[in-house]
Amino acid sequence: MKIGLIGGTGDIGEGLALRWGLNTEHALLIGSRKADKARERAEEFARKLEIAGRKAKSGITGGTNEDVVKDSEIVVLCVEAPYVVATLRELLGVLSPDKIVVTPAVSMVRKGGVFLYAPPPDGSMAVQLARVLPEAIPLVSAFHTVPAHKLADLSATLDQDVVVLGDMKDAKERIMGLVAEIDGLHPIDGGPLVTSSLVESITPLLINLAIVNKRKNLAIKFV
Amino acid sequence: MKIGLIGGTGDIGEGLALRWGLNTEHALLIGSRKADKARERAEEFARKLEIAGRKAKSGITGGTNEDVVKDSEIVVLCVEAPYVVATLRELLGVLSPDKIVVTPAVSMVRKGGVFLYAPPPDGSMAVQLARVLPEAIPLVSAFHTVPAHKLADLSATLDQDVVVLGDMKDAKERIMGLVAEIDGLHPIDGGPLVTSSLVESITPLLINLAIVNKRKNLAIKFV
Repeated sequence: MKIGLIGGTGDIGEGLALRWGLNTEHALLIGSRKADKARERAEEFARKLEIAGRKAKSGITGGTNEDVVKDSEIVVLCVEAPYVVATLRELLGVLSPDKIVVTPAVSMVRKGGVFLYAPPPDGSMAVQLARVLPEAIPLVSAFHTVPAHKLADLSATLDQDVVVLGDMKDAKERIMGLVAEIDGLHPIDGGPLVTSSLVESITPLLINLAIVNKRKNLAIKFV
Repeated sequence: MKIGLIGGTGDIGEGLALRWGLNTEHALLIGSRKADKARERAEEFARKLEIAGRKAKSGITGGTNEDVVKDSEIVVLCVEAPYVVATLRELLGVLSPDKIVVTPAVSMVRKGGVFLYAPPPDGSMAVQLARVLPEAIPLVSAFHTVPAHKLADLSATLDQDVVVLGDMKDAKERIMGLVAEIDGLHPIDGGPLVTSSLVESITPLLINLAIVNKRKNLAIKFV
Protein backbone atom coordinates (compact mmCIF):
# COMPACT_ATOMS: atom_id res chain seq x y z
CA MET A 1 0.00 0.00 0.00
CA LYS A 2 1.08 3.61 -0.45
CA ILE A 3 0.96 5.51 2.83
CA GLY A 4 1.38 9.28 2.82
CA LEU A 5 2.47 10.99 6.01
CA ILE A 6 1.42 14.64 5.70
CA GLY A 7 3.67 16.85 7.80
CA GLY A 8 5.52 13.59 8.31
CA THR A 9 8.88 15.16 9.16
CA GLY A 10 8.01 15.38 12.89
CA ASP A 11 7.97 12.81 15.69
CA ILE A 12 4.74 10.99 14.87
CA GLY A 13 5.56 10.90 11.15
CA GLU A 14 9.00 9.51 11.89
CA GLY A 15 7.55 6.92 14.25
CA LEU A 16 4.97 5.64 11.80
CA ALA A 17 7.45 5.67 8.89
CA LEU A 18 10.08 3.74 10.84
CA ARG A 19 7.67 1.19 12.29
CA TRP A 20 5.86 0.50 9.01
CA GLY A 21 9.21 0.65 7.24
CA LEU A 22 10.61 -2.01 9.54
CA ASN A 23 7.63 -4.35 9.62
CA THR A 24 6.02 -4.06 6.18
CA GLU A 25 6.60 -3.58 2.45
CA HIS A 26 4.34 -0.52 2.16
CA ALA A 27 5.63 2.51 0.26
CA LEU A 28 6.02 5.39 2.72
CA LEU A 29 5.72 8.94 1.40
CA ILE A 30 6.90 11.72 3.69
CA GLY A 31 5.18 15.03 3.02
CA SER A 32 6.12 18.55 4.04
CA ARG A 33 5.42 22.09 2.87
CA LYS A 34 9.00 22.04 1.56
CA ALA A 35 9.94 19.12 -0.71
CA ASP A 36 13.64 19.43 0.19
CA LYS A 37 12.97 19.01 3.89
CA ALA A 38 10.72 16.03 3.20
CA ARG A 39 13.37 14.34 1.04
CA GLU A 40 16.10 14.93 3.63
CA ARG A 41 13.97 13.41 6.39
CA ALA A 42 12.96 10.47 4.16
CA GLU A 43 16.66 9.72 3.56
CA GLU A 44 17.32 10.00 7.29
CA PHE A 45 14.49 7.56 8.07
CA ALA A 46 15.82 5.13 5.42
CA ARG A 47 19.29 5.25 7.03
CA LYS A 48 17.77 4.56 10.44
CA LEU A 49 15.99 1.53 9.01
CA GLU A 50 19.25 0.24 7.50
CA ILE A 51 20.95 0.61 10.90
CA ALA A 52 18.02 -1.23 12.48
CA GLY A 53 18.72 -4.10 10.11
CA ARG A 54 16.06 -3.80 7.44
CA LYS A 55 17.42 -5.92 4.61
CA ALA A 56 15.47 -4.89 1.50
CA LYS A 57 15.74 -1.31 0.30
CA SER A 58 13.07 0.61 2.18
CA GLY A 59 10.49 2.46 0.11
CA ILE A 60 10.65 5.82 1.86
CA THR A 61 10.48 8.92 -0.30
CA GLY A 62 9.78 12.61 0.30
CA GLY A 63 7.81 15.34 -1.48
CA THR A 64 5.40 18.19 -1.01
CA ASN A 65 2.25 17.39 0.95
CA GLU A 66 0.23 17.85 -2.22
CA ASP A 67 2.35 15.45 -4.29
CA VAL A 68 2.31 12.92 -1.48
CA VAL A 69 -1.50 12.96 -1.28
CA LYS A 70 -1.74 12.49 -5.05
CA ASP A 71 0.39 9.35 -4.88
CA SER A 72 -1.04 7.84 -1.67
CA GLU A 73 -3.92 5.49 -0.86
CA ILE A 74 -3.73 6.27 2.87
CA VAL A 75 -3.21 9.88 4.00
CA VAL A 76 -2.18 10.34 7.64
CA LEU A 77 -2.42 13.95 8.87
CA CYS A 78 0.70 14.19 11.05
CA VAL A 79 0.72 17.98 11.29
CA GLU A 80 0.31 19.59 14.70
CA ALA A 81 -3.25 20.09 15.90
CA PRO A 82 -3.47 23.87 15.36
CA TYR A 83 -2.66 23.42 11.64
CA VAL A 84 -4.61 20.27 10.77
CA VAL A 85 -7.83 21.90 9.56
CA ALA A 86 -6.02 24.46 7.38
CA THR A 87 -3.76 21.74 5.96
CA LEU A 88 -6.71 19.50 5.11
CA ARG A 89 -8.48 22.41 3.36
CA GLU A 90 -5.40 23.01 1.21
CA LEU A 91 -5.33 19.36 0.19
CA LEU A 92 -9.03 18.97 -0.71
CA GLY A 93 -8.28 19.38 -4.43
CA VAL A 94 -6.04 16.30 -4.50
CA LEU A 95 -8.13 14.08 -2.22
CA SER A 96 -10.69 11.61 -3.57
CA PRO A 97 -13.01 8.86 -2.26
CA ASP A 98 -10.46 6.12 -3.05
CA LYS A 99 -8.08 7.55 -0.42
CA ILE A 100 -8.52 7.14 3.34
CA VAL A 101 -7.68 10.13 5.54
CA VAL A 102 -6.40 9.34 9.04
CA THR A 103 -6.27 11.82 11.94
CA PRO A 104 -4.22 11.29 15.11
CA ALA A 105 -4.53 15.00 16.04
CA VAL A 106 -5.49 16.14 19.53
CA SER A 107 -6.23 19.73 20.45
CA MET A 108 -5.09 20.64 23.97
CA VAL A 109 -3.99 23.56 26.13
CA ARG A 110 -1.56 23.82 29.02
CA LYS A 111 -2.98 25.53 32.10
CA GLY A 112 -1.52 25.61 35.60
CA GLY A 113 1.13 23.01 34.83
CA VAL A 114 -1.29 20.41 33.45
CA PHE A 115 -2.81 19.72 30.07
CA LEU A 116 -6.52 20.01 29.34
CA TYR A 117 -8.43 18.72 26.35
CA ALA A 118 -9.51 21.67 24.21
CA PRO A 119 -11.61 20.31 21.36
CA PRO A 120 -12.88 22.53 18.56
CA PRO A 121 -16.56 23.63 18.78
CA ASP A 122 -17.62 20.53 16.83
CA GLY A 123 -16.68 18.43 19.87
CA SER A 124 -13.55 16.72 18.56
CA MET A 125 -10.85 17.14 15.94
CA ALA A 126 -12.18 14.13 14.05
CA VAL A 127 -15.71 15.52 13.79
CA GLN A 128 -14.38 18.90 12.71
CA LEU A 129 -12.25 17.33 9.96
CA ALA A 130 -15.23 15.21 8.86
CA ARG A 131 -17.20 18.43 8.31
CA VAL A 132 -14.38 19.82 6.15
CA LEU A 133 -14.05 16.65 4.04
CA PRO A 134 -16.56 15.75 1.30
CA GLU A 135 -18.82 13.02 2.68
CA ALA A 136 -17.59 10.35 0.24
CA ILE A 137 -13.99 10.53 1.47
CA PRO A 138 -13.47 8.18 4.40
CA LEU A 139 -11.99 9.60 7.59
CA VAL A 140 -10.55 7.41 10.34
CA SER A 141 -9.42 8.62 13.77
CA ALA A 142 -6.48 6.69 15.28
CA PHE A 143 -3.05 6.70 16.95
CA HIS A 144 -3.91 9.35 19.59
CA THR A 145 -2.52 7.39 22.52
CA VAL A 146 0.69 6.20 20.87
CA PRO A 147 3.66 8.07 22.37
CA ALA A 148 5.39 9.54 19.31
CA HIS A 149 8.87 9.60 20.77
CA LYS A 150 8.76 5.94 21.78
CA LEU A 151 7.25 4.99 18.42
CA ALA A 152 10.21 6.63 16.69
CA ASP A 153 12.70 4.80 18.90
CA LEU A 154 13.15 1.44 17.23
CA SER A 155 14.98 0.07 20.27
CA ALA A 156 11.75 0.43 22.30
CA THR A 157 9.33 -2.48 22.51
CA LEU A 158 5.67 -1.57 22.15
CA ASP A 159 2.70 -3.34 23.74
CA GLN A 160 -0.38 -1.16 23.72
CA ASP A 161 -3.89 -0.73 22.36
CA VAL A 162 -4.81 1.73 19.62
CA VAL A 163 -8.45 2.78 19.41
CA VAL A 164 -9.59 3.22 15.80
CA LEU A 165 -12.80 5.15 15.10
CA GLY A 166 -14.73 5.82 11.92
CA ASP A 167 -18.11 5.73 10.24
CA MET A 168 -17.12 3.70 7.18
CA LYS A 169 -16.55 0.05 8.05
CA ASP A 170 -14.16 -0.88 5.22
CA ALA A 171 -11.92 2.15 5.75
CA LYS A 172 -11.81 1.55 9.50
CA GLU A 173 -10.92 -2.10 9.00
CA ARG A 174 -8.11 -1.23 6.60
CA ILE A 175 -6.61 1.16 9.14
CA MET A 176 -7.03 -1.43 11.91
CA GLY A 177 -5.06 -3.79 9.67
CA LEU A 178 -2.29 -1.22 9.27
CA VAL A 179 -2.15 -0.72 13.04
CA ALA A 180 -1.85 -4.46 13.58
CA GLU A 181 1.09 -4.61 11.16
CA ILE A 182 3.22 -2.66 13.62
CA ASP A 183 4.68 -5.00 16.24
CA GLY A 184 3.14 -4.32 19.64
CA LEU A 185 0.24 -2.13 18.50
CA HIS A 186 -3.15 -3.77 18.99
CA PRO A 187 -6.08 -2.14 17.17
CA ILE A 188 -9.48 -1.99 18.82
CA ASP A 189 -12.66 -0.69 17.18
CA GLY A 190 -13.76 2.45 19.03
CA GLY A 191 -17.06 2.79 17.18
CA PRO A 192 -18.27 5.85 15.26
CA LEU A 193 -16.35 9.08 14.72
CA VAL A 194 -18.71 11.03 16.99
CA THR A 195 -17.07 9.35 20.00
CA SER A 196 -13.54 10.37 18.96
CA SER A 197 -13.40 12.97 21.74
CA LEU A 198 -13.40 10.11 24.29
CA VAL A 199 -10.11 8.89 22.83
CA GLU A 200 -8.55 12.23 21.89
CA SER A 201 -8.92 13.36 25.51
CA ILE A 202 -6.76 10.48 26.72
CA THR A 203 -3.69 12.18 25.21
CA PRO A 204 -3.57 15.10 27.69
CA LEU A 205 -4.28 12.59 30.49
CA LEU A 206 -1.27 10.48 29.47
CA ILE A 207 0.92 13.59 29.45
CA ASN A 208 -0.35 14.65 32.89
CA LEU A 209 0.22 11.16 34.32
CA ALA A 210 3.74 11.22 32.89
CA ILE A 211 4.48 14.63 34.48
CA VAL A 212 2.89 13.90 37.88
CA ASN A 213 4.29 10.37 38.23
CA LYS A 214 7.59 10.83 36.36
CA ARG A 215 6.70 8.00 33.97
CA LYS A 216 7.62 8.75 30.37
CA ASN A 217 5.89 7.64 27.17
CA LEU A 218 2.74 6.25 28.74
CA ALA A 219 0.18 4.48 26.59
CA ILE A 220 -2.95 2.45 27.35
CA LYS A 221 -4.21 -1.09 27.36
CA PHE A 222 -7.78 -2.20 27.89
CA VAL A 223 -7.96 -5.08 30.32
CA MET B 1 -10.99 3.57 58.99
CA LYS B 2 -14.73 4.20 58.68
CA ILE B 3 -15.82 4.28 55.06
CA GLY B 4 -19.33 5.44 54.20
CA LEU B 5 -20.83 4.38 50.89
CA ILE B 6 -23.62 6.86 50.13
CA GLY B 7 -26.24 5.27 47.91
CA GLY B 8 -24.15 2.20 48.53
CA THR B 9 -26.91 -0.31 47.83
CA GLY B 10 -26.14 -0.39 44.08
CA ASP B 11 -23.42 -2.10 42.04
CA ILE B 12 -20.48 0.20 42.76
CA GLY B 13 -21.35 0.37 46.47
CA GLU B 14 -21.58 -3.40 46.64
CA GLY B 15 -18.27 -3.79 44.80
CA LEU B 16 -16.37 -1.43 47.08
CA ALA B 17 -17.97 -2.87 50.23
CA LEU B 18 -17.16 -6.46 49.25
CA ARG B 19 -13.60 -5.75 48.12
CA TRP B 20 -12.68 -3.63 51.14
CA GLY B 21 -14.60 -6.07 53.31
CA LEU B 22 -12.55 -8.96 52.02
CA ASN B 23 -9.13 -7.31 52.03
CA THR B 24 -9.19 -4.92 55.01
CA GLU B 25 -10.45 -4.31 58.54
CA HIS B 26 -12.17 -1.01 57.71
CA ALA B 27 -15.70 -0.44 58.97
CA LEU B 28 -18.04 -0.20 55.98
CA LEU B 29 -21.21 1.83 56.33
CA ILE B 30 -23.84 1.36 53.61
CA GLY B 31 -26.07 4.39 53.17
CA SER B 32 -29.43 4.77 51.48
CA ARG B 33 -32.42 7.11 51.62
CA LYS B 34 -34.17 4.27 53.43
CA ALA B 35 -32.39 2.83 56.47
CA ASP B 36 -34.19 -0.53 56.09
CA LYS B 37 -32.95 -1.03 52.55
CA ALA B 38 -29.42 -0.10 53.59
CA ARG B 39 -29.46 -2.57 56.50
CA GLU B 40 -30.82 -5.38 54.29
CA ARG B 41 -28.10 -4.83 51.70
CA ALA B 42 -25.41 -4.57 54.41
CA GLU B 43 -26.51 -7.99 55.73
CA GLU B 44 -26.48 -9.38 52.20
CA PHE B 45 -22.93 -8.08 51.63
CA ALA B 46 -21.82 -9.58 54.97
CA ARG B 47 -23.25 -12.98 53.94
CA LYS B 48 -21.40 -12.79 50.61
CA LEU B 49 -18.17 -12.10 52.47
CA GLU B 50 -18.75 -15.11 54.72
CA ILE B 51 -19.31 -17.29 51.66
CA ALA B 52 -16.11 -15.87 50.14
CA GLY B 53 -14.27 -17.05 53.24
CA ARG B 54 -13.77 -13.92 55.31
CA LYS B 55 -12.97 -15.30 58.76
CA ALA B 56 -13.47 -12.40 61.18
CA LYS B 57 -16.92 -10.87 61.47
CA SER B 58 -17.09 -8.19 58.77
CA GLY B 59 -17.86 -4.67 59.88
CA ILE B 60 -20.62 -3.89 57.41
CA THR B 61 -23.61 -1.94 58.67
CA GLY B 62 -26.43 0.04 57.07
CA GLY B 63 -28.22 3.31 57.80
CA THR B 64 -29.57 6.49 56.27
CA ASN B 65 -27.14 8.44 54.09
CA GLU B 66 -27.12 11.18 56.71
CA ASP B 67 -26.29 8.86 59.62
CA VAL B 68 -23.60 7.17 57.54
CA VAL B 69 -21.90 10.47 56.76
CA LYS B 70 -21.97 11.45 60.44
CA ASP B 71 -20.13 8.24 61.39
CA SER B 72 -17.65 8.09 58.47
CA GLU B 73 -14.18 9.47 57.82
CA ILE B 74 -14.37 8.68 54.10
CA VAL B 75 -17.60 9.42 52.21
CA VAL B 76 -17.91 7.80 48.78
CA LEU B 77 -20.77 9.17 46.67
CA CYS B 78 -22.06 5.98 45.00
CA VAL B 79 -25.38 7.46 43.83
CA GLU B 80 -26.08 7.64 40.11
CA ALA B 81 -24.71 10.68 38.27
CA PRO B 82 -28.02 12.56 37.83
CA TYR B 83 -28.57 12.58 41.62
CA VAL B 84 -25.05 13.22 42.94
CA VAL B 85 -25.21 17.00 43.20
CA ALA B 86 -28.61 17.01 44.93
CA THR B 87 -27.47 14.25 47.31
CA LEU B 88 -24.31 16.16 48.22
CA ARG B 89 -26.33 19.32 48.90
CA GLU B 90 -28.59 17.40 51.28
CA LEU B 91 -25.55 16.09 53.18
CA LEU B 92 -23.69 19.41 53.55
CA GLY B 93 -24.95 19.83 57.12
CA VAL B 94 -23.27 16.62 58.32
CA LEU B 95 -20.02 17.00 56.35
CA SER B 96 -16.91 18.57 57.87
CA PRO B 97 -13.24 19.16 56.94
CA ASP B 98 -12.12 16.00 58.76
CA LYS B 99 -14.02 13.85 56.25
CA ILE B 100 -12.89 13.12 52.70
CA VAL B 101 -15.55 13.07 49.98
CA VAL B 102 -14.89 10.74 47.03
CA THR B 103 -16.69 10.91 43.66
CA PRO B 104 -16.67 8.11 41.08
CA ALA B 105 -19.63 9.67 39.22
CA VAL B 106 -19.66 10.12 35.45
CA SER B 107 -22.35 12.00 33.57
CA MET B 108 -23.11 10.51 30.16
CA VAL B 109 -25.84 10.20 27.54
CA ARG B 110 -26.71 7.44 25.09
CA LYS B 111 -27.10 8.62 21.50
CA GLY B 112 -27.28 6.52 18.36
CA GLY B 113 -26.31 3.32 20.14
CA VAL B 114 -23.15 4.72 21.75
CA PHE B 115 -22.37 6.61 24.92
CA LEU B 116 -21.07 10.17 24.96
CA TYR B 117 -19.53 12.05 27.85
CA ALA B 118 -21.98 14.74 28.99
CA PRO B 119 -20.26 16.73 31.74
CA PRO B 120 -22.09 19.44 33.66
CA PRO B 121 -21.37 23.06 32.62
CA ASP B 122 -18.46 23.23 35.08
CA GLY B 123 -16.55 20.78 32.84
CA SER B 124 -16.67 17.67 35.00
CA MET B 125 -18.67 16.11 37.80
CA ALA B 126 -15.71 16.52 40.16
CA VAL B 127 -15.39 20.26 39.52
CA GLN B 128 -19.12 20.74 39.93
CA LEU B 129 -19.12 18.91 43.26
CA ALA B 130 -16.09 20.94 44.38
CA ARG B 131 -18.12 24.11 43.83
CA VAL B 132 -20.94 22.75 45.97
CA LEU B 133 -18.64 21.68 48.82
CA PRO B 134 -17.14 24.20 51.28
CA GLU B 135 -13.49 24.73 50.28
CA ALA B 136 -12.10 23.17 53.47
CA ILE B 137 -13.70 19.78 52.81
CA PRO B 138 -11.39 17.64 50.67
CA LEU B 139 -12.82 16.12 47.49
CA VAL B 140 -11.12 13.28 45.63
CA SER B 141 -12.18 11.93 42.22
CA ALA B 142 -11.56 8.19 41.70
CA PHE B 143 -12.88 4.75 40.65
CA HIS B 144 -14.41 5.95 37.32
CA THR B 145 -12.86 3.18 35.23
CA VAL B 146 -13.52 0.29 37.60
CA PRO B 147 -16.27 -1.91 36.15
CA ALA B 148 -18.81 -2.07 38.99
CA HIS B 149 -20.21 -5.47 38.11
CA LYS B 150 -16.79 -7.12 38.04
CA LEU B 151 -15.80 -5.34 41.25
CA ALA B 152 -18.86 -6.84 42.97
CA ASP B 153 -18.03 -10.33 41.68
CA LEU B 154 -15.54 -11.69 44.20
CA SER B 155 -14.68 -14.61 41.91
CA ALA B 156 -13.23 -12.12 39.38
CA THR B 157 -9.53 -11.25 39.52
CA LEU B 158 -8.74 -7.55 39.08
CA ASP B 159 -5.60 -6.06 37.54
CA GLN B 160 -6.12 -2.47 36.54
CA ASP B 161 -5.11 1.13 37.19
CA VAL B 162 -7.28 3.61 39.06
CA VAL B 163 -6.61 7.30 38.43
CA VAL B 164 -7.03 9.36 41.60
CA LEU B 165 -7.39 13.15 41.30
CA GLY B 166 -7.58 15.89 43.87
CA ASP B 167 -6.24 19.27 44.98
CA MET B 168 -5.37 18.31 48.57
CA LYS B 169 -2.29 16.11 48.72
CA ASP B 170 -3.01 14.33 52.02
CA ALA B 171 -6.59 13.47 51.12
CA LYS B 172 -5.53 12.20 47.70
CA GLU B 173 -2.81 10.03 49.21
CA ARG B 174 -5.22 8.53 51.72
CA ILE B 175 -7.61 7.55 48.94
CA MET B 176 -4.72 6.17 46.86
CA GLY B 177 -3.87 4.05 49.90
CA LEU B 178 -7.45 2.75 50.09
CA VAL B 179 -7.36 1.91 46.36
CA ALA B 180 -4.14 -0.03 46.82
CA GLU B 181 -5.70 -2.06 49.65
CA ILE B 182 -8.01 -3.74 47.12
CA ASP B 183 -6.19 -6.63 45.44
CA GLY B 184 -5.56 -5.84 41.78
CA LEU B 185 -6.36 -2.12 41.86
CA HIS B 186 -3.31 0.07 41.28
CA PRO B 187 -3.70 3.76 42.17
CA ILE B 188 -2.04 6.39 40.01
CA ASP B 189 -1.99 10.12 40.79
CA GLY B 190 -3.96 11.92 38.06
CA GLY B 191 -3.06 15.41 39.23
CA PRO B 192 -5.50 18.20 40.13
CA LEU B 193 -9.30 17.96 40.13
CA VAL B 194 -9.58 20.27 37.13
CA THR B 195 -8.38 17.39 34.92
CA SER B 196 -11.04 14.96 36.20
CA SER B 197 -12.95 15.22 32.91
CA LEU B 198 -10.05 13.42 31.19
CA VAL B 199 -10.69 10.39 33.39
CA GLU B 200 -14.48 10.61 33.70
CA SER B 201 -14.74 10.51 29.90
CA ILE B 202 -13.00 7.13 29.79
CA THR B 203 -16.10 5.50 31.29
CA PRO B 204 -18.34 5.98 28.22
CA LEU B 205 -15.38 4.89 26.06
CA LEU B 206 -15.05 1.63 28.01
CA ILE B 207 -18.79 0.98 27.61
CA ASN B 208 -18.60 1.67 23.85
CA LEU B 209 -15.57 -0.60 23.44
CA ALA B 210 -17.44 -3.31 25.34
CA ILE B 211 -20.51 -2.97 23.09
CA VAL B 212 -18.63 -2.71 19.78
CA ASN B 213 -16.12 -5.46 20.52
CA LYS B 214 -18.28 -7.71 22.73
CA ARG B 215 -15.77 -7.50 25.56
CA LYS B 216 -17.40 -7.12 28.96
CA ASN B 217 -16.16 -5.26 32.04
CA LEU B 218 -13.27 -3.44 30.38
CA ALA B 219 -10.89 -1.37 32.49
CA ILE B 220 -7.56 0.35 31.75
CA LYS B 221 -3.89 0.00 32.44
CA PHE B 222 -1.24 2.57 31.67
CA VAL B 223 1.77 0.94 30.05
